[in-house]
Amino acid sequence: MSTTRGLLDPPSGFPVVGMIGGGQLARMTGQSAISLGVGFRVLAAGPTESASRAIQDIAIGDPDDPIVAAEFASACDVVTFDHEQVPPAVLEAMSNAGATLRPGPESLVYAQDKIAMRELLTEAGLPCPRWRVVDTSAEASDFASSLGGVLVLKLSRGGYDGRGVWVCSSESEIADVMSQELPDDVRWLAEERVDFTQELAAVAVRSKSGQSLAYPVVRTVQTDGMCTEVISPAPGLAEEHATAAQDVALRVAELVAVVGVLAVEMFDTVDGVLINELAMRPHNSGHWSIDGAVTSQFENHLRGVLDLPLGDTSPRQDWSVMVNLVGGETTDLYAGAERVLREDPGLKIHVYAKETRVGRKLGHVTVCGDELDSLLARAHHAADEMTGAIDGWVG
Amino acid sequence: MSTTRGLLDPPSGFPVVGMIGGGQLARMTGQSAISLGVGFRVLAAGPTESASRAIQDIAIGDPDDPIVAAEFASACDVVTFDHEQVPPAVLEAMSNAGATLRPGPESLVYAQDKIAMRELLTEAGLPCPRWRVVDTSAEASDFASSLGGVLVLKLSRGGYDGRGVWVCSSESEIADVMSQELPDDVRWLAEERVDFTQELAAVAVRSKSGQSLAYPVVRTVQTDGMCTEVISPAPGLAEEHATAAQDVALRVAELVAVVGVLAVEMFDTVDGVLINELAMRPHNSGHWSIDGAVTSQFENHLRGVLDLPLGDTSPRQDWSVMVNLVGGETTDLYAGAERVLREDPGLKIHVYAKETRVGRKLGHVTVCGDELDSLLARAHHAADEMTGAIDGWVG
Repeated sequence: MSTTRGLLDPPSGFPVVGMIGGGQLARMTGQSAISLGVGFRVLAAGPTESASRAIQDIAIGDPDDPIVAAEFASACDVVTFDHEQVPPAVLEAMSNAGATLRPGPESLVYAQDKIAMRELLTEAGLPCPRWRVVDTSAEASDFASSLGGVLVLKLSRGGYDGRGVWVCSSESEIADVMSQELPDDVRWLAEERVDFTQELAAVAVRSKSGQSLAYPVVRTVQTDGMCTEVISPAPGLAEEHATAAQDVALRVAELVAVVGVLAVEMFDTVDGVLINELAMRPHNSGHWSIDGAVTSQFENHLRGVLDLPLGDTSPRQDWSVMVNLVGGETTDLYAGAERVLREDPGLKIHVYAKETRVGRKLGHVTVCGDELDSLLARAHHAADEMTGAIDGWVG
Repeated sequence: MSTTRGLLDPPSGFPVVGMIGGGQLARMTGQSAISLGVGFRVLAAGPTESASRAIQDIAIGDPDDPIVAAEFASACDVVTFDHEQVPPAVLEAMSNAGATLRPGPESLVYAQDKIAMRELLTEAGLPCPRWRVVDTSAEASDFASSLGGVLVLKLSRGGYDGRGVWVCSSESEIADVMSQELPDDVRWLAEERVDFTQELAAVAVRSKSGQSLAYPVVRTVQTDGMCTEVISPAPGLAEEHATAAQDVALRVAELVAVVGVLAVEMFDTVDGVLINELAMRPHNSGHWSIDGAVTSQFENHLRGVLDLPLGDTSPRQDWSVMVNLVGGETTDLYAGAERVLREDPGLKIHVYAKETRVGRKLGHVTVCGDELDSLLARAHHAADEMTGAIDGWVG
């Protein structure tokens, strides 16, 4: 069972949103809930999770335990999620307990199961890389040959931040990757490796009533499969590709009937945009919106799941650049913060209050303004200085 | 004694700021602490105070009890305040317990005692209205005569939001006001009634090391002594008056050695600016900075008291308008929020999660943009609609 502290109802008339999962997305959603005045409760696995250190109403318990989740949900008017990897039994237990889940299981499945996602999007005529479900390495190698020899193999369920994805260039690599045993509900999805000009993300938000809005399309840069840099709007993106990407995000939002934020990760190619992945929650590619947009993705996620009217997604200046603070050599993040704040009074830092660990997302920095090159230099310098990777900075 | 919940230390290297008082200023300061990743603890009088409903680490206890405050302070690296009306015994108890108070008692006295403030500012040559300490109504009437018959009488200690201030136009009014018995540490301060063109506030922030910055000078509009509207920057303010007002704020900050935010309320007159009141904490006249400035007054207050470098106080657009949500006929603030968010996607609402009561500050709304008239109309409409005062709206 969960232990709770707080659990103070908001003033009369104000609803309580519950969030499953206590990571930084819950932390930053809670920060927005303070402005709206709504109640915000989080089910977190432990007291040192990012949200546990910031949110007033925390229930500590195993979010993957159906009984714990159902008990938590019964104290909330609406339940939403800081990650999509919620076991079906947990969703079912909460539904059976009468909880209002937003997004609902019928939407979430398309962020949980990449095969279900590909089938739905392809049927709807939305642009995807070439793909095939493969059960044997022979099938995969056969598909690879038709694509010129290179294949991307993905677990249909369970991957994130680059995990569960392999790029294979030979039959032996394919055989090696596919030699691992899969859980019962997981299959292999094979996709072409897309020759992209840049990676994009289109974040949209949709309310329960169906109002939907798109944020500007951003460029995302991945390092070792993890998002590390976001530029809003995506520089050099052709007008028609930007429009197409927003259109795709809004169509997907409608198609999967998402409630709250939907992030569509895409490849930009000479022929147009292709859908890579879906996420149904506030997304790393939207963190710039805290400082750079009229309404942040976190506030709009709350407004969407509460069926409040959505807020303006417009940018507040020409450019925003966000760079993640990824755990590196330095463990004293606070000393680093002191240095970078001295050097750059316009820098916005967002620290997630996690213990430092190499490769872990510990926070992000954002700068907004009108000269992109300068913003990129400032944001990377700050992130490198805070995390101790300053030697890697080539400015 | 206080009861605590939470009390979870931040990750290693990060300090803990404690705030005495659990009102909306503590609530919004805590919201900024989440971004900085620092620990933030609040000593609040009860579980339904504004900050108690939002902040993770709340100690519930009487903030005016020296033993409670000293115990609270011992769990914090730095202690600051969401109001200045802190009894001297409480400050002394915390100091004796080894607490680091920012601002310290030697600064706070100038926000607590209007006579001490007038003496210091006058000695330093800073512009004040004509004033005199009066002990009898005869002295007061005599001073009133020299000023043309009208006098402002103020309690030297304990007033706020217009309380503790009387405008008197006759000897009998003066005698009537001064017939009340005063506490031992309170005296009467008599001041001229200033013929002002507008009321201003200059918010400055100063760090422990002495770095200081000023925000743009704003126009404040008071209704029944309570701030209800703020325009940043003050419209129609002569350039030299704006510069003088910022200069005064920065000089006062240095003079009183404030640490954190200092707000100087002023009168703008044809002859220049005059100092009305001082506050040493985030101030209602600076709430616009959450949405309208690069760095909010709340973040800069934290940065000042932690001796972190201060953040850019520049505005992010031409104009910001903030209007307070003052409790009116409507008790269902959430239904009002739903309506105004539908009408105005660019509106920012900040709800303090207090139970509604007529005349109580329940929140504020802010809009930012480049057309002042339109911003004023939008902000007042939203506030009136949310609080049920829509009949008073003549837009």
